[in-house]
Amino acid sequence: MAKQKKQPRPKAETPKGFRDYFGAEVTERNRMLAQIAEVYDRYGFDPLETSAVETVEALGKFLPDVDRPNDGVFAFQEDGGAEDGTWLALRYDMTAPLARVAAQFRNDLPNPYRRYTMGPVWRNEKPGPGRFRQFYQCDADTVGAASVAADAEICAMLADTLEAVGIERGDYIVRVNNRKVLEGILQNVFGTVDAVSTLISTDQDQSEVRANVLRTVDKYDKIGAEGVRQLLTTGRTDQSGAEIEGVGLSARQAEQIVLFLDARRRSNEETLSTLQETVGGSVVGNQGVQELRQIADLLAAQGYGPDRIVIDPSVVRGLGYYTGPVYEAELTFEITDEKGRPRQFGSVAGGGRYDDLVKRFTGQEVPATGVSIGVDRLLAALRAKGRLSGTTEGPVVVTVMDRDRMADYQAMASELRAAGVRAEVYLGNPKNFGNQLKYADKRQSPVAVIQGSDEAAAGKVQLKDLILGAKLAQDATLEEWKSQPAQTEVDRADLVAGVKALLDRHR
Amino acid sequence: MAKQKKQPRPKAETPKGFRDYFGAEVTERNRMLAQIAEVYDRYGFDPLETSAVETVEALGKFLPDVDRPNDGVFAFQEDGGAEDGTWLALRYDMTAPLARVAAQFRNDLPNPYRRYTMGPVWRNEKPGPGRFRQFYQCDADTVGAASVAADAEICAMLADTLEAVGIERGDYIVRVNNRKVLEGILQNVFGTVDAVSTLISTDQDQSEVRANVLRTVDKYDKIGAEGVRQLLTTGRTDQSGAEIEGVGLSARQAEQIVLFLDARRRSNEETLSTLQETVGGSVVGNQGVQELRQIADLLAAQGYGPDRIVIDPSVVRGLGYYTGPVYEAELTFEITDEKGRPRQFGSVAGGGRYDDLVKRFTGQEVPATGVSIGVDRLLAALRAKGRLSGTTEGPVVVTVMDRDRMADYQAMASELRAAGVRAEVYLGNPKNFGNQLKYADKRQSPVAVIQGSDEAAAGKVQLKDLILGAKLAQDATLEEWKSQPAQTEVDRADLVAGVKALLDRHR
Repeated sequence: MAKQKKQPRPKAETPKGFRDYFGAEVTERNRMLAQIAEVYDRYGFDPLETSAVETVEALGKFLPDVDRPNDGVFAFQEDGGAEDGTWLALRYDMTAPLARVAAQFRNDLPNPYRRYTMGPVWRNEKPGPGRFRQFYQCDADTVGAASVAADAEICAMLADTLEAVGIERGDYIVRVNNRKVLEGILQNVFGTVDAVSTLISTDQDQSEVRANVLRTVDKYDKIGAEGVRQLLTTGRTDQSGAEIEGVGLSARQAEQIVLFLDARRRSNEETLSTLQETVGGSVVGNQGVQELRQIADLLAAQGYGPDRIVIDPSVVRGLGYYTGPVYEAELTFEITDEKGRPRQFGSVAGGGRYDDLVKRFTGQEVPATGVSIGVDRLLAALRAKGRLSGTTEGPVVVTVMDRDRMADYQAMASELRAAGVRAEVYLGNPKNFGNQLKYADKRQSPVAVIQGSDEAAAGKVQLKDLILGAKLAQDATLEEWKSQPAQTEVDRADLVAGVKALLDRHR
Repeated sequence: MAKQKKQPRPKAETPKGFRDYFGAEVTERNRMLAQIAEVYDRYGFDPLETSAVETVEALGKFLPDVDRPNDGVFAFQEDGGAEDGTWLALRYDMTAPLARVAAQFRNDLPNPYRRYTMGPVWRNEKPGPGRFRQFYQCDADTVGAASVAADAEICAMLADTLEAVGIERGDYIVRVNNRKVLEGILQNVFGTVDAVSTLISTDQDQSEVRANVLRTVDKYDKIGAEGVRQLLTTGRTDQSGAEIEGVGLSARQAEQIVLFLDARRRSNEETLSTLQETVGGSVVGNQGVQELRQIADLLAAQGYGPDRIVIDPSVVRGLGYYTGPVYEAELTFEITDEKGRPRQFGSVAGGGRYDDLVKRFTGQEVPATGVSIGVDRLLAALRAKGRLSGTTEGPVVVTVMDRDRMADYQAMASELRAAGVRAEVYLGNPKNFGNQLKYADKRQSPVAVIQGSDEAAAGKVQLKDLILGAKLAQDATLEEWKSQPAQTEVDRADLVAGVKALLDRHR
């Protein structure tokens, strides 16, 4: 009997940090993706869909928190761990795959290459409330455009897109900054003049310090000027009481950086003047300010004023690969968080210029810029504002009174479908009729169709208005509704017309 | 200088067995997914989207070729190989995740639970021509319906869906069989009466033989009756000259199985009679024939005759988890394969009843049935029939004659977009005007907008009809076209009207 060993039952569980999406959650997301795609398409971007899997080599390591185990990606070896198996990983964003595509197909693609893409990305990070390991991104990028007109266009399109999905003007702001300005500040801080990008710095130690500075200033929105000051110097104790090590800059160095982050003034013009002073004589810093000025001018000329798009030096973006303008869209309205406290909704999209990502592959300069919209966060925002119903209309349910006449019931459902009405026959065990009506309720079915043997003999069907029924059950004094019968009998031949009349009651 | 060590450049390559989808490939697939979703929705199925990642434990091992390395899935450990990290894997189909969801949320979901889902699945298998490691599936299933009315409904819906996406009646056939009939045959062959499902057989050796038989009969479409006879007995030499081991049945046993596979007759009625004889006294075999009869009757009553849906005992489906009716949709027209030979297009969808999949988790019987459409194969079929254009309309390209007037050019593109016209400003280096027109050509742009300083001063723009231009270049004697100018000048204020007039020429 040794062969009859029983296996323990597997656990029916979504893996930690993943979730399932049901019904309206799926259709609402699909609708939003279609709305975004429509704007991207109208701007001339072409669709691209890369696979979820890339080689680890092609993906590179550009996630914000590079000190995490396994670098934040889900990686695996091609042939189940064979020694020469290629290391593969799930994409952690849409930009790294684009850089690979732009390099791989550089002789075939139009130049510039403008593409949009949408789909899930995966992060092997610690999950938290509302923070999942798989989430949707919806990106648009222009590869091969050195002009900041490309950055300005993306910012304008981002504003248009937010309005297209239902975020009203005034409820969002697109904030723009430039990594070159930060680089100028850092040159002043460190007293050196080297490469623009922190990525291609050849001095490993300084590159690490710069990465730490970047990570720290990216927290400005959360921990404020004083928090950044502490982290840039000797460290700080966070809310949970944990000691966080400082970057080790001097107080004077830290102050220069905080001055930069704090440089947003009441108008773009004032902000740009302040930045101009802050970068001093740094060539790259001045170039950065000049680019920001061009972007602000281009946008103003097209009517995108500071009510929609604003220069804001506190925007840094965590990713290591940005080399020029960076931008972020923030929703400015308050929502109630899981602990009942009001808070700003925060960032829903971000992007920037990454002139060195394609160069990784080809060795040739390929300027590029693009944006990524966090679709799941945007959906959460619209839900918090009550802009999404969260429900779908259930099907008309044809109940089964006599299981030998299944073909008749199926014919009724077919007729309804042919007339464009969502319909189905109850396919559970028909023995208990109450269960059939409970099922129809759970499906939010508007109408139940009932035909027992008596009705069948008389050529009739009963139609039960379940929406009205539910309203009457809720409020027995509702005279207006009471005058309409919740259940009616119609000729079998009038099934479709009768159902449509009931559906029209509630539209 | 040791720190300046150069890293080798990463290869810009799609991982082996994966590919990228560009432009129309993406939009055509999305359109097809939407068409399928519409039919599924009208039948009363609700959307569900599970994540790409499941625990290995929940997925189970049900792939057809269970003898492959790593069981055909891409698996990885949660915390980068930490000893207690959960083993996760990319889903290899949509059925295993559904079984997990049905078990996990059994107290909240309607019963029956009818869901549809669409998205990529991944197989860690050897790639081949047209055979990729990531491909789309589009599934609909009813969980909790024991009645074969649920199977019949899915077959009818499958026929409707194929017609909805553009496969004409006569170009497809849905073939239906029942695993219970095969089980009856096997009982006769092995002379035992045991459990219905090959999955829950407690005799490991016999279960292996059964799995081998299943795998062999699944090849009937490819290798024919004689090939199956050889493989079921002593083995055969395939086209490449490789010796394939036989299952080891006797010639008489093999013949019984081949008789079953070959039992399709000119009408469903004749086929059912033949099956009835073939199963002899087997209880489960007779039950299987009876179920097939019910399905055929239900479908006939709804007008789905053998021109669309037919009983065909040669349909087996490779997956191990089926327990009752199985079905497959095949396209019946010929296409030309990669070697120029005509061949039948073959299977594009399949499914069946799997009454034990949810039971794996809960221990309780949960009958279920469903279908999976291979969307990528269906798209390939429509392309082979010339039913998909494979192209998208390019954007109107506003060229840049004077880079200082970028804001003016952007304003033109904005106006066009506001009028619903797909448009963009050329964002590459504008120095070489020829490159701008080459770019417009590559984008299949219908119209280029040109405004140099002279036109700007005069308040004019030039509109170049690129479709007409291409036609004239192709055929200089085309009088009809020659009478229309390929380039026109309009007032700046008439930009939108002028562009629309050119677009209308070609619609």
